[in-house]
Amino acid sequence: MRIALGVQYDGAAFCGWQSQPHGKTVQDELERALREFAQTPLQTVVAGRTDTGVHGLGQVVHLDTDLERAEFSWVRGTNAFLPSTVAVQWAKPMPDTFHARFSAFERTYYYALYVHPVRSPMLSGRVGWIHTPLEVDAMRAAAAYLIGEHDFSAFRSSECQAKTPVKHLYQIDVRRDGDFIHFRFRANAFLHHMVRNLMGCLIAIGRGRYPVDWLADVLQSRDRNYAAPTFMPDGLYLAQVGYPDEFAIPAAPVGSVPWSHVWNNQTQS
Amino acid sequence: MRIALGVQYDGAAFCGWQSQPHGKTVQDELERALREFAQTPLQTVVAGRTDTGVHGLGQVVHLDTDLERAEFSWVRGTNAFLPSTVAVQWAKPMPDTFHARFSAFERTYYYALYVHPVRSPMLSGRVGWIHTPLEVDAMRAAAAYLIGEHDFSAFRSSECQAKTPVKHLYQIDVRRDGDFIHFRFRANAFLHHMVRNLMGCLIAIGRGRYPVDWLADVLQSRDRNYAAPTFMPDGLYLAQVGYPDEFAIPAAPVGSVPWSHVWNNQTQS
Repeated sequence: MRIALGVQYDGAAFCGWQSQPHGKTVQDELERALREFAQTPLQTVVAGRTDTGVHGLGQVVHLDTDLERAEFSWVRGTNAFLPSTVAVQWAKPMPDTFHARFSAFERTYYYALYVHPVRSPMLSGRVGWIHTPLEVDAMRAAAAYLIGEHDFSAFRSSECQAKTPVKHLYQIDVRRDGDFIHFRFRANAFLHHMVRNLMGCLIAIGRGRYPVDWLADVLQSRDRNYAAPTFMPDGLYLAQVGYPDEFAIPAAPVGSVPWSHVWNNQTQS
Repeated sequence: MRIALGVQYDGAAFCGWQSQPHGKTVQDELERALREFAQTPLQTVVAGRTDTGVHGLGQVVHLDTDLERAEFSWVRGTNAFLPSTVAVQWAKPMPDTFHARFSAFERTYYYALYVHPVRSPMLSGRVGWIHTPLEVDAMRAAAAYLIGEHDFSAFRSSECQAKTPVKHLYQIDVRRDGDFIHFRFRANAFLHHMVRNLMGCLIAIGRGRYPVDWLADVLQSRDRNYAAPTFMPDGLYLAQVGYPDEFAIPAAPVGSVPWSHVWNNQTQS
């Protein structure tokens, strides 16, 4: 039987998702807890591997097992063996045609940016921080150049293992909310470090270091050397993974991101 | 010269405010950083000592020094020597008549409660968590019994050092916001563990374990044994300390609490 799990985690507490011999990773913690609960090793397949410091809100994994348990037993039973920084949010039996990675047709990331002269201790590790004002309109105009299907090599880490640098970016939404600027990136898939590299460029434009149309030049260059430095991971959240409706994947709990009021009750363009 | 500082900290990272020989406390970190910046020992006097796990948003301290520095130099200079979990938010020269503790006539605490069957990793250490539904109307009605000047001995920790158990509670505000219930307590001063003990009782009533008017009986008993157990510190924030207008103490930055939208743009009753 195939089971899908929704997983949330505080990325600041982990060396990324993927299991490592000498690192504390989310996959290691999750598979250790599943083994404790199921009393047998269980391997997981993840929708999106996240890097060190990147948070998971709507992360999805699947696993195959003969163990018959009620859906909420998977949640409560696994969470009993997990640290406070990671928790299964829901569990659901799935048909064998479901695959956490290959069935996904869309990924949504949030980036939360705190714009203030002084850093915020309560939000440490949970937001990116910039101490100088940013021009939101300029960032929004620059982001428009990126929408569509493009070769995103200019924003790709040298360690990226994707088969192709061509991705379809559906949306970049930029909203100011008090001392924050909230970004939402929606694409069929992302390259390694792509959102953090895009954030580095958008912030450089927001600070007035480059004109708005510089971002079109960077995109067309397909050369990582033209782009701005990779921005900090602290404010980056894997918010949602999109699957075909037939799988009826549950949404992440509304309150799980402190800025849920920004993204709730809004229409997707 | 007397200087006042506004300080924020993530209480989950510290063994409370007050300096201890064998504990990592906010006071220890702050005075160590001030010594590094000022190149001389500086002792601080704090508005409200907070316990292990309790967060500071609008904490205020004062210190006396001969050192002449621009206001923002105190902020930036001290923060350079502080860990990410604590930061000075503002600095301001004050008259000698100002005293961080004795000039304060009012304290405001927030309690953020997450009500959901599954715990939230991103909010771990930052909210209290209850996995069963609560009756907000019952809690609000019970809270009304507490407003006014009372002997709060029933909600006082045995370690409390206050001279008198009589305090004046001006307001308990209870608001539901999605999966959260937000509480705001405003009083001239609070006894040790008083808010956490009040929270324990309000939650017991919200779960239907006691009727609304049970809280009046507990208050009148003046006996700690009648009250519910002390609730977890995770969701408790020292939000604001009230001083006479003549001191013109700056407000904490709006974005510093993730639930600022709940408490902003509202009238105080």
